Amino acid sequence: MPSILAVGSVAYDSVKTPFGEAEEVLGGSATFFSVVASFFSRVNLVACVGEDFRREDVEFLESRNVDLTGLEYMKGRTFRWKGEYSYDLNEAHTLETELNVLSNFRPKIPKKYRDSEYVFLGNIDPTLQREVLSQVLNPRLVACDTMNYWIEGRFQSLIKTLKHVGILIINDAEARQLANEVNMVRAARKILGWGPRILVIKRGEYGVLMFQVPGEQSLDHGSSLVVPVSGGDLTIFGAPAYPLEDVFDPTGAGDSFAGGFMGYLAGVNRVDTQAIRQATIFGSVMASFCVEKFSLDRLRELTYTEIELRYKEFREMTRFEDIEELDKVLSS
Amino acid sequence: MPSILAVGSVAYDSVKTPFGEAEEVLGGSATFFSVVASFFSRVNLVACVGEDFRREDVEFLESRNVDLTGLEYMKGRTFRWKGEYSYDLNEAHTLETELNVLSNFRPKIPKKYRDSEYVFLGNIDPTLQREVLSQVLNPRLVACDTMNYWIEGRFQSLIKTLKHVGILIINDAEARQLANEVNMVRAARKILGWGPRILVIKRGEYGVLMFQVPGEQSLDHGSSLVVPVSGGDLTIFGAPAYPLEDVFDPTGAGDSFAGGFMGYLAGVNRVDTQAIRQATIFGSVMASFCVEKFSLDRLRELTYTEIELRYKEFREMTRFEDIEELDKVLSS
Repeated sequence: MPSILAVGSVAYDSVKTPFGEAEEVLGGSATFFSVVASFFSRVNLVACVGEDFRREDVEFLESRNVDLTGLEYMKGRTFRWKGEYSYDLNEAHTLETELNVLSNFRPKIPKKYRDSEYVFLGNIDPTLQREVLSQVLNPRLVACDTMNYWIEGRFQSLIKTLKHVGILIINDAEARQLANEVNMVRAARKILGWGPRILVIKRGEYGVLMFQVPGEQSLDHGSSLVVPVSGGDLTIFGAPAYPLEDVFDPTGAGDSFAGGFMGYLAGVNRVDTQAIRQATIFGSVMASFCVEKFSLDRLRELTYTEIELRYKEFREMTRFEDIEELDKVLSS
Repeated sequence: MPSILAVGSVAYDSVKTPFGEAEEVLGGSATFFSVVASFFSRVNLVACVGEDFRREDVEFLESRNVDLTGLEYMKGRTFRWKGEYSYDLNEAHTLETELNVLSNFRPKIPKKYRDSEYVFLGNIDPTLQREVLSQVLNPRLVACDTMNYWIEGRFQSLIKTLKHVGILIINDAEARQLANEVNMVRAARKILGWGPRILVIKRGEYGVLMFQVPGEQSLDHGSSLVVPVSGGDLTIFGAPAYPLEDVFDPTGAGDSFAGGFMGYLAGVNRVDTQAIRQATIFGSVMASFCVEKFSLDRLRELTYTEIELRYKEFREMTRFEDIEELDKVLSS
């Protein structure tokens, strides 16, 4: 089985939602990503923690078959994030960020990770993302996340990183900001002109929209090709989110999406269009589970049967029949 | 071919968007609905206009085979709406509303309309909506629209109307407000407990979500049955919107959705679950055309070939393959 190299943050989160609160629970983008992806594939984690990182959290990650050779223990405290959600649960309000060990983090890729075929560059400084890539031999697929902070403060560096990325996975606000364009199709066209051949837009409760450079049936040609798409037609895929009656804590939903998405592709070792569409659904499935409980709690108890069932529900939920020619079906 | 009885407003709109403006152009909920539905079915229009209603607009509606027997000419001016959209195009800002003849409108259903099998109650006072229904003999399917104004000011009357409605078609903000519930699944459950067996939620650029009372394969049992759904599982269908690069004027998109939705059902004379899902797509198709030009201009030139093609694009855009059992597809 191929493995995924994942770089990003490991954190202790304190989260308050209208349904309760959790203090100093395991979190961080790389944590959610790795635990979710581990359902489908082996994961090689590259991240840093402080001296206070709890033994039980190490054991949990190990129990999920996440390789921790690349988890660096640094002097100081683990990264902390404190946030709050109001009733609509769509946006996190950050109350406090303590970078701690993260502020001096320079990802070092262990030798045994260097031939990872699948690489996920979590939401870190785009310069560090490129440093990671430079230490990987010949990845089959590179996917990448980013956020408003880097779009505003490191735009040129981010554009450089995008040249080497096959799939960019961001939310709709980030896509609009990155392209400086309100219309999503125009934004996608612009972003795909910078390197990625697929742009996956996460839209929270509204689901996901995927734009693909026209004519490409597979990403299987290395990941550094820049394809100009201005004027060409994009291939688009869209799916709704799984409608949930109880959303307890949206923290980690986006990272869980990426984990399900990349995990599935690495798990089946395919990067063709059909597999990528299925991966989008697995991403949505895993994100929908993630938010059902605080922190990683729902993922701790999740089974393959539940994952398969929800995938099938997505099929049912989006299925509609083709039509004959209209003039033949309309009564006269 | 069965026909649709449609009641609602006919208006002259003045609209400003970031891409241009239009003054005193043909608009109104019943106008958009009728013109769109006329692509699929015969439409019997019930609405009122003033003495200033233009001959060319009458001729246009007649050219679309919209029956105007129920179009009442009243003393005074036609209803006017003036609105503006900013760059995100998601929300109309009403600058001016002149009710004019609409303020004294009491819909009278011409005798020849009374056996209409399909009824669409456009966005008018819920008391008037019931007056319309009381004049219709035995409709097969009743669908209904409403808005924040009636939810706030005529809540009890609206609830009375809903008892007689098979399908409620509203947007997400209206659904949340009507149910007084942020979570959409909970909101749907509550609303479906008031009478409708199907709730269609229009989400603008995010597409459409449809909730159906469990176990019902068809609406074919008259339209006044109240089904309690608390606790039961809902059947859900979701589809993205057609991603458009150029949205010129969102006015009428919601009414065009309803027109495509009801037009298709009447056109094929079916009210089973599969037809209703297809109708949702035709609604989305027609709404996507509506916004491509100002007023009804895109609909004036629209062809069946274009409609069929966009339906097929929706199929392509939402299609993904089933999976075998996960443990069989994942490489080991």
